[in-house]
Amino acid sequence: MSGENDLRPGELALELPAAYDAGVYFIGRIRTPFKSRNDCPKSPAQSDAIGRVELDPPYAAGLADLALYSHVFLLYWMDRARRDLIQQVPAYLDHPRGTFALRSPVRPNPIALAAVELIGIEATTLSVRKIDCIDGTPLIDIKPYFASIDSFPHARRP
Amino acid sequence: MSGENDLRPGELALELPAAYDAGVYFIGRIRTPFKSRNDCPKSPAQSDAIGRVELDPPYAAGLADLALYSHVFLLYWMDRARRDLIQQVPAYLDHPRGTFALRSPVRPNPIALAAVELIGIEATTLSVRKIDCIDGTPLIDIKPYFASIDSFPHARRP
Repeated sequence: MSGENDLRPGELALELPAAYDAGVYFIGRIRTPFKSRNDCPKSPAQSDAIGRVELDPPYAAGLADLALYSHVFLLYWMDRARRDLIQQVPAYLDHPRGTFALRSPVRPNPIALAAVELIGIEATTLSVRKIDCIDGTPLIDIKPYFASIDSFPHARRP
Repeated sequence: MSGENDLRPGELALELPAAYDAGVYFIGRIRTPFKSRNDCPKSPAQSDAIGRVELDPPYAAGLADLALYSHVFLLYWMDRARRDLIQQVPAYLDHPRGTFALRSPVRPNPIALAAVELIGIEATTLSVRKIDCIDGTPLIDIKPYFASIDSFPHARRP
């Protein structure tokens, strides 16, 4: 095997369980200018891209009142990522870091989380600012952002 | 049928798809003082409870370097919630609101998101502050919190 699925020195794979514990529905798709993982910005902080969140029509009623919020969380499913790496060596580090200390798409449950500015809603399409995923990524949830419980401006990181 | 699964006036249920699109693994459990949904605080802002996140031992290596962060996101699976309500009437509102404009556990994919302060890590157990879920809730992911992309102190809400 070769290509992006190779392990780097220091990376660690594990054997995943034989069965899933629960199931998710894809409820829409996220449209972005990025056609492959290499096209994607390294982080939403480096992206001013406008994206469109296309919710599947049966879920339309779930958007009622969402436009009252300035920011939302998107949860999406990184369906091209392997799930079995438990330590990884990102390009910017010289040692392995635990998967749960990284925002890498590679994780046991490949769910990504992005807090984005909500620009507008038309029918079942949301326009959002600062989104960095691959075009066509499956959407699994939208949540309102509450500064009172979600914002920690002084949170420390290494 | 009776009890907490009844619909309130204005609430709207939908028919969910016949099959799931992807599967999740439960990777641990969250231990809290709250034994039922009625015991839980309405929001983590109202909780100073210390919780324990018990990661299953096969995933232990995924915690390397996590202690360098002051805050983490927990993603967990609200396994007692129905999934088919697309509009809901919370106790504090007099009209239905879309599920995606609420943080209610009731949603097509019952994944909750909590930003919590990381107090400490011992082996595969994390101590965290401000957690409001039911004791025993299945854990599905841990992510580091990055103020640069996750914190919007001026986000507006109704």
